[in-house]
Amino acid sequence: MTSYWQDFPGIPEALERVSGIIRETSASENPIISQGLAGLFDGQGKLLRPGLLLITAGFGKIQDKHYTLAACLEMLHMATLIHDDVIDESPTRRGRPAVHAQYGNRNAVLMGDYLLSRCFLLASEYTSADNAVGLARVIATICGMEIEQNSDRFRTNISLRHYLRKIMGKSAALFALACHVGASEARASKALTAQLRRIGYNIGMAFQIIDDILDYAGDPGTVRKPLGNDLKDGLVTLPLICAIRGEGAFAPEDAGTLRGFFSADHFSVGDSGAIIGLVRNSGGLEAARAYAEKYTARAIREIAALPAGSPRDMLDRLTRLLLVRDA
Amino acid sequence: MTSYWQDFPGIPEALERVSGIIRETSASENPIISQGLAGLFDGQGKLLRPGLLLITAGFGKIQDKHYTLAACLEMLHMATLIHDDVIDESPTRRGRPAVHAQYGNRNAVLMGDYLLSRCFLLASEYTSADNAVGLARVIATICGMEIEQNSDRFRTNISLRHYLRKIMGKSAALFALACHVGASEARASKALTAQLRRIGYNIGMAFQIIDDILDYAGDPGTVRKPLGNDLKDGLVTLPLICAIRGEGAFAPEDAGTLRGFFSADHFSVGDSGAIIGLVRNSGGLEAARAYAEKYTARAIREIAALPAGSPRDMLDRLTRLLLVRDA
Repeated sequence: MTSYWQDFPGIPEALERVSGIIRETSASENPIISQGLAGLFDGQGKLLRPGLLLITAGFGKIQDKHYTLAACLEMLHMATLIHDDVIDESPTRRGRPAVHAQYGNRNAVLMGDYLLSRCFLLASEYTSADNAVGLARVIATICGMEIEQNSDRFRTNISLRHYLRKIMGKSAALFALACHVGASEARASKALTAQLRRIGYNIGMAFQIIDDILDYAGDPGTVRKPLGNDLKDGLVTLPLICAIRGEGAFAPEDAGTLRGFFSADHFSVGDSGAIIGLVRNSGGLEAARAYAEKYTARAIREIAALPAGSPRDMLDRLTRLLLVRDA
Repeated sequence: MTSYWQDFPGIPEALERVSGIIRETSASENPIISQGLAGLFDGQGKLLRPGLLLITAGFGKIQDKHYTLAACLEMLHMATLIHDDVIDESPTRRGRPAVHAQYGNRNAVLMGDYLLSRCFLLASEYTSADNAVGLARVIATICGMEIEQNSDRFRTNISLRHYLRKIMGKSAALFALACHVGASEARASKALTAQLRRIGYNIGMAFQIIDDILDYAGDPGTVRKPLGNDLKDGLVTLPLICAIRGEGAFAPEDAGTLRGFFSADHFSVGDSGAIIGLVRNSGGLEAARAYAEKYTARAIREIAALPAGSPRDMLDRLTRLLLVRDA
């Protein structure tokens, strides 16, 4: 975590405080909860959402509750990771065995529920009623989108529009919320809060697209999760959508072969190795990256219009950093 | 539902309104969510927690939001049922296939999360900040207790005290909350709210004990879930604890054989058939029932001290009804 944020003045210290709150909240009387959550947390996520909330708080007057709310967002994120890994039967997370792999599905489902409720508890104690409502709404949206994504598994006719709507709900909405809560709880003006919320949305869209690219192109040692996971799980994401649409076709014959796989309504797990190769060859990754760049450019443009100062500089730096990340 | 509440003036109509809110909230854009939740909901629970909330609201001024909050409690209850059935791999619920059996574990986990977040959403929109905190706290407690219960599976040295603490956290706390929210949101006095909360707690304790007895003694056609489920799942509940303690020993030799099973630290699934027979023979069910009667008597005593009127009469009737229920 520290190395990621080293060029962001004040943020590593602030995130240290946030981590303390997460550790404290996770230190339940129950040893399984404490160990399971400590293990996941020490697995060292980037603390991206808390970091974003803290940076945007800098556009107003940062308050004690910001640290708690930042912790709350990370706990929500951890809850979704735990349940996702149960659902996807993913053996590892952050380079370690996933919670369900260590403690069983039963405990993993309950631990996710526990975290969700602790997160709501903190939200209802520390945030305005409006923001508590916002948080609950985002979680409901995330679950709705995940269920929708699930009914789309192995379906081949996923449109670009459908994909974008899905990543908005399951991912960008939480980034937007982080910025909204950071700014509004710091009493930034409504206009500024709305602007930061849009920036969060664009950052989140770019972030998820890069994530989807890394599933095709990442170095397993760096990404710390199995490569090709999404596709094996039946998820059709942007690199594949671009390749099928022929958007990145510097090898049109590969795009053609790819469309062959998709002449049926469904593809099968067995096809995923071949599909990954074809997507790489046909320029699908580059085409997808162009979308990430588009959302990043939008964010950068809105950031340039923000009041000058350290928070603005940090938002700009973070946005650019996320575009070139390799994990 | 209707037949259960037929002697409670005004409650069937009020619960009809609550059901409408649940149906409306469950009617997501996503067909899987809508169908899954409609199926579970039409499976017709008793709507006990919403009913309790509505009755206790009668001790003050009932308001529109009471119906929403009642819906909220039932949705929370539904979420725990869905996740419980995933966890326990229970094939049926309310006489129908469980949600995970119909839609898969993946959708069931997500549907539970979706319901939880919709429940928090309603709570943060409609209830006081204090009650939203209370709700989140109860859910965190329920999850904590379920995880603890899970680490206790197949352990033989469960003490009476440990058992009582567990059912308090996983079950009675929600009954207490129903009464608390009903009364406090109706602006009943603090003293009256606290009294109703205690009554809810005692009703909840009796309710859970009866539930645990029905797992040994119920008629599968009426209970609508597989008999002996708890024990096969490694759960040591009150009838067994009483039998081992020799509390109901009208057949001391059976209690002796039973203790034999428990000389080891753990019992195994294969023993459960024999254990059920021995618990029945040794008077464990009757001894457990005495505890349920004790909590019921406490509730009845506190109810008698409430202001006279229809809400008091209904609470009294409900408490007695729950003690003799066979499902």
